[in-house]
Amino acid sequence: MITSTQNQRIKHLLLLQQKSAQRRADGLFVVEGRREVEHCLEAGFTLRTAFVCEEIAEASLSLPQDIEVVPVSRNVYERIAYRGGTEGIVAVVEARKTELTDLKLSSSPLIVVLESVEKPGNLGAVLRSADAAGADAVIVCDPLTDLYNPNLIRSAVGALFTVPCVACSTEECISFFKEKGIQILTAQLQDSKLYYDTPMTGPTAIVMGTEATGLTDQWRIAADAHIRIPMLGQLDSLNVSVSAAILLYEAVRQRQLYNNVK
Amino acid sequence: MITSTQNQRIKHLLLLQQKSAQRRADGLFVVEGRREVEHCLEAGFTLRTAFVCEEIAEASLSLPQDIEVVPVSRNVYERIAYRGGTEGIVAVVEARKTELTDLKLSSSPLIVVLESVEKPGNLGAVLRSADAAGADAVIVCDPLTDLYNPNLIRSAVGALFTVPCVACSTEECISFFKEKGIQILTAQLQDSKLYYDTPMTGPTAIVMGTEATGLTDQWRIAADAHIRIPMLGQLDSLNVSVSAAILLYEAVRQRQLYNNVK
Repeated sequence: MITSTQNQRIKHLLLLQQKSAQRRADGLFVVEGRREVEHCLEAGFTLRTAFVCEEIAEASLSLPQDIEVVPVSRNVYERIAYRGGTEGIVAVVEARKTELTDLKLSSSPLIVVLESVEKPGNLGAVLRSADAAGADAVIVCDPLTDLYNPNLIRSAVGALFTVPCVACSTEECISFFKEKGIQILTAQLQDSKLYYDTPMTGPTAIVMGTEATGLTDQWRIAADAHIRIPMLGQLDSLNVSVSAAILLYEAVRQRQLYNNVK
Repeated sequence: MITSTQNQRIKHLLLLQQKSAQRRADGLFVVEGRREVEHCLEAGFTLRTAFVCEEIAEASLSLPQDIEVVPVSRNVYERIAYRGGTEGIVAVVEARKTELTDLKLSSSPLIVVLESVEKPGNLGAVLRSADAAGADAVIVCDPLTDLYNPNLIRSAVGALFTVPCVACSTEECISFFKEKGIQILTAQLQDSKLYYDTPMTGPTAIVMGTEATGLTDQWRIAADAHIRIPMLGQLDSLNVSVSAAILLYEAVRQRQLYNNVK
């Protein structure tokens, strides 16, 4: 059992949590909590090492045979547990890069695109909304986005492993949609129609800019339609994960109606 | 100019930020940032004192004449700025209690009810969604809820001042709705119909439980209908502010349609 927070492996784990450069260099990231680890395994990720605090873990975890399990003391666990959680497991996992061509899309895909990510926690929250709405994928148009940021993983509550997430360039993304015949709906206030007056039963990508600066012209021009969520209050913005959920669930509603009528 | 973080007034300000007991005892709370202070003034709150760091404030603030403005140095400002913000103003404001009977409701009110608040930040996010959807009020059925928690104020980005927010008991709230003829729609998975198959054009209250435990029987029994958001992914929950936004915007959609058809 590792009982010292100065242990080299613990120090390395902390670096993986804290530094995206370390994650990139090693091709590894950190997942915490029983449920997250389960979703991660189900998604086919390879666990390298599981640091387990038996004292805290409520029930024994059923991990695959070939995973190295390293027992740690409570004080070590409390140092490495990012959430201060109580589930007793922190795992080191091999990163993998999903490309657009890896996506297995349904017959009428529903995709969320974020042009860039202001806060990793926002992307996590978008993934959670995308999971709930049964979206096919979330795409971030910044190839350098670190999908394994701890705040992202935490706010996604497992959705990073249930919804395919791709980081690529805007050009690649637009070409992909044009080639696949996926309509591009850009969320923007100017020159737009109400989102619920826009058909979303066909293959659809919903593209969202940042809360601060909105979308670039590249997306506005590539769009099949510009859509807006009516703002009926005194403030003028919604959280990006909230906006994504409103738009995704309108697609869910329309598709349900369409399938019932058909 | 106050230049020491040990100044008694600064110490008192920090207590107001950190301790709900202090807020309750003094009937005061703290608002930070230019935009928030403006919304707070527009909503008719009384500012007691504005601590301003001229070095940081980008433009001169137009505050009412009778407000005491206390200049502070940059080091003091950095100590009292909860957000580490850059807007140069932190204000002490008089709390006020809004009762159900104070609410000025529209002809077809749209109200969000949270049975309890797990995290103050969640209530702030619900207020933000409620503002966007033009809701009449947000009601929290826990009379002891501290509406002036800094995390709440921060995540509401001003919506605490643009959307009336009431804390009361469940009994009072149910009586109020019955008396006013406001239909009660409870968000719950069991024994429910899809939210978009539920009419929301009339006076409507959307009632939500906690992410962890859902709603109590008291609300389930009082409900005119039970509604659910279909969960189409592998996880089984949405953030409460996201759920609130999806349900509120369905009401917005239906009402727009209804008003156009009428």
